[in-house]
Amino acid sequence: MSSSSRITHPAFRAKVTSAAQAAAMIRPGDTVGMSGFTGSGYPKAVPIALAEQIEAAHAKGEDFRVRVWTGASTGPELDAALAKVDGIEFRLPYNSDPIAREKINSGKMDYFDMHLSQVAPMAWQGFLGKLDVALVEVTGITPDGLLIPSSSVGNNKTWLDRADKIILEVNSWQSPALEGIHDIYYGTQLPPHRVPIPLLRADDRIGSHYFTVDPAKVVAVVETDSPDRNLPFSAPDASANAIAGHLMQFFAHEVKLGRMPENLLPLQSGVGNIANAVLSGLVDSPFTNMTSFTEVIQDGMIDLLDTGKLRMASATAFSLSPEAAARVNADMGRYRDKMILRPQEISNHPELIRRLGCIAMNGLIEADIYGNVNSTHVMGSRIQNGIGGSGDFARNAYVSIFMTPSTAKGGKISAIVPQASHVDHITQDVQVIVTEQGLADLRGLSPRQRAQVIIANCAHPTFRPMLEDYYARALKGSYGLQSPSLPGEALSWHQRFIETGSMLV
Amino acid sequence: MSSSSRITHPAFRAKVTSAAQAAAMIRPGDTVGMSGFTGSGYPKAVPIALAEQIEAAHAKGEDFRVRVWTGASTGPELDAALAKVDGIEFRLPYNSDPIAREKINSGKMDYFDMHLSQVAPMAWQGFLGKLDVALVEVTGITPDGLLIPSSSVGNNKTWLDRADKIILEVNSWQSPALEGIHDIYYGTQLPPHRVPIPLLRADDRIGSHYFTVDPAKVVAVVETDSPDRNLPFSAPDASANAIAGHLMQFFAHEVKLGRMPENLLPLQSGVGNIANAVLSGLVDSPFTNMTSFTEVIQDGMIDLLDTGKLRMASATAFSLSPEAAARVNADMGRYRDKMILRPQEISNHPELIRRLGCIAMNGLIEADIYGNVNSTHVMGSRIQNGIGGSGDFARNAYVSIFMTPSTAKGGKISAIVPQASHVDHITQDVQVIVTEQGLADLRGLSPRQRAQVIIANCAHPTFRPMLEDYYARALKGSYGLQSPSLPGEALSWHQRFIETGSMLV
Repeated sequence: MSSSSRITHPAFRAKVTSAAQAAAMIRPGDTVGMSGFTGSGYPKAVPIALAEQIEAAHAKGEDFRVRVWTGASTGPELDAALAKVDGIEFRLPYNSDPIAREKINSGKMDYFDMHLSQVAPMAWQGFLGKLDVALVEVTGITPDGLLIPSSSVGNNKTWLDRADKIILEVNSWQSPALEGIHDIYYGTQLPPHRVPIPLLRADDRIGSHYFTVDPAKVVAVVETDSPDRNLPFSAPDASANAIAGHLMQFFAHEVKLGRMPENLLPLQSGVGNIANAVLSGLVDSPFTNMTSFTEVIQDGMIDLLDTGKLRMASATAFSLSPEAAARVNADMGRYRDKMILRPQEISNHPELIRRLGCIAMNGLIEADIYGNVNSTHVMGSRIQNGIGGSGDFARNAYVSIFMTPSTAKGGKISAIVPQASHVDHITQDVQVIVTEQGLADLRGLSPRQRAQVIIANCAHPTFRPMLEDYYARALKGSYGLQSPSLPGEALSWHQRFIETGSMLV
Repeated sequence: MSSSSRITHPAFRAKVTSAAQAAAMIRPGDTVGMSGFTGSGYPKAVPIALAEQIEAAHAKGEDFRVRVWTGASTGPELDAALAKVDGIEFRLPYNSDPIAREKINSGKMDYFDMHLSQVAPMAWQGFLGKLDVALVEVTGITPDGLLIPSSSVGNNKTWLDRADKIILEVNSWQSPALEGIHDIYYGTQLPPHRVPIPLLRADDRIGSHYFTVDPAKVVAVVETDSPDRNLPFSAPDASANAIAGHLMQFFAHEVKLGRMPENLLPLQSGVGNIANAVLSGLVDSPFTNMTSFTEVIQDGMIDLLDTGKLRMASATAFSLSPEAAARVNADMGRYRDKMILRPQEISNHPELIRRLGCIAMNGLIEADIYGNVNSTHVMGSRIQNGIGGSGDFARNAYVSIFMTPSTAKGGKISAIVPQASHVDHITQDVQVIVTEQGLADLRGLSPRQRAQVIIANCAHPTFRPMLEDYYARALKGSYGLQSPSLPGEALSWHQRFIETGSMLV
């Protein structure tokens, strides 16, 4: 099927052009709202062409950088291509590209790390500035001029609604059977006109299958045929399996005590190998008739859907390995009935997360002995990816769980530290911490009670005595004893790592 | 009017007893859910009687402590009386009593500092343990056996629903005209049965004027005639007036740019003198037809209601000076039509705060140069009060504003520090910081951009060069440059204060 057959409306067909010509419509200093969420559904041709034009301008000594807004992370054809040529002045709301990360951490790119649910509302509120161009990948354009969304929804509705100009990429690699999987809610408003989001169950549909755009705003349509990034997942290691095991025990215990229903509650699962391992753990669990209300559909969720134990998955994007992507794409007509892709302001909406009572499961970089969680900044200053949707889910979840191996860098970094060097999730938003060592159930505990449980259950045996020693001395020398601390050495483990390459003495 | 005439139902009249006899129904180790929110509507007789019984037990060498849950802070007859005799083993979710604070900070009392919106849901979810006794002040009991709530609602509905035993205090000091002011929503559920909260405007009523209880659970009714704590407010000083002035300019600017409606959006205002000064500032502002959706109704809000510029105030409690309390109580029949008191899970509900688009204005202890806010822990370890509802509002607000004088302790403490010694509000939840020095509008700024604006606009001139120096060196020596920091000295200002009594070198 040629991609041109996917552009079945004459007003859009008339705008078909090359990536280079489309890119030429983006001017220096423009703010461009691009599609893309966890490596899915991002534009794959125009950003590369734009990077070439930026490089050429720089070679001539001209200034040319743009401000890039997306859904979340994208692929090498977008963030890497533009970052490499120093083409991004400002970036929001999430990035996982190594080249862009390096530019940010060397001070060459400004990065605004946002709650993913807040990007669209803040854009509508006018708090982020003007949006010049929307650059959005779609699966196709219907004879009525409606846009069939791609493998991620992200903030595309907002970009299409708010931008002055629209550039579309129509990607024929995307399965045509994606048509019908999406649920684009068009009921958001600015206050004082906001109304309840009419979603009561994770599998409710409340919107349209399509984006509606003003054809007059569409300045270019580019045809592509390129796969999503589709990074492979590692097979779960012993540590990930141990974490999954502790969690399965916890769920069983909660169900036994009547604190969770037998089919659990809608699952939210962060992106990554440990989250994927937990989903795999659920394949062998006794729980059935489960649902998910989450950001991304990962490999483990496909496995869970295949067993029938997961009844349906609601998300804003796919994040699949090449194998899983091939499997899902080949059978999209069947999977489509078990999946819903929504705008990220809906997939991550605090109102819905609290109403549905999601079980939130997210990763972390470090947690301190009181359960403050750092999800973003290595050693307090170097951004890894961003907070993403973890704050949307952690604060509003029925129960908020954070998971990590107890050490990193071959045992030189402890994931449990005296004081978090940066805080993304405050103690109030962290009810359970799990490492391969064990699970700390922090519900209803004061900070001093939390410290004992976290050190005993989650810290690695190598670091546990160091934490016990710090905590014992803090109990004696702290200014106050609500959350005992010694500011003179609370961040010394990080300082030591920076100086010596290890948190170990 | 004698208080007995307020108990007009025979099943409740039959339970009338002394405070001592009622207190004797509370056993060592019991968890007691008490009424009370910011010094309003807390039980005033039974806690004192309980404290006497605890003291007598301790004198005999017996163990006797209880676990105390409330709405928020209470009055000296509750927290101080019980803390003084070491009668509280565990306390949630908020405290501002100095004696209880001292017990917490000396390690003698466990304190679980919670988001106020989450207390009721977490109690229902079974995460906080069993509730043995509800001890709740009411204004009266109707002939039908319905309870007329008092000057705060807090978590009373939840305590009355969930406790095994109920003890009521009927306080004839409370104006009988309070009947009709309350709006007790009985539609909350546990997931998967939660539904949208059907509130679209700050002045919508969605519930009952009364609490409904099972009379069989009521074990004692105690008559009282005592005023709420009613601490006086200080008159706004120059610093508070300057902060209010900066905010008025900001609001006018936002309205001019079309980013806020002309009548603003529902106001949330934290407790305290600065918040009160801002409300006073609004009295002289051009804004009219305003509403508030907040936690407490303070003096400044009464003044604003009196001008007619504030159309109505929704809260969960009063927090008035003695003068304002007398004024409001004397004229409650008129004020009642402009005020609504709701359960705190509704007044602080994330779903409603985001839907209504509240303008959140809260105080802070310190903010760092990236806009992380510490609202709770002096020098990172000593609890002041608690997070209260600030997290509920800051994360979900249309715009989240934090306000503070730029220094404390006679200039020895800077409210702007290199790194917050404890974090309650992450940078994502802090859009504006205001001190008497100026206002930092942080919307859409990366951490490095935020640092420059906060140091330039908010820091006190005495500390500004020290912050500039730290930031300049962090830009050179930081591990990563997303949020430049030097872990070896990031908390050195706090350490210096602990050692020398001043953050100044």
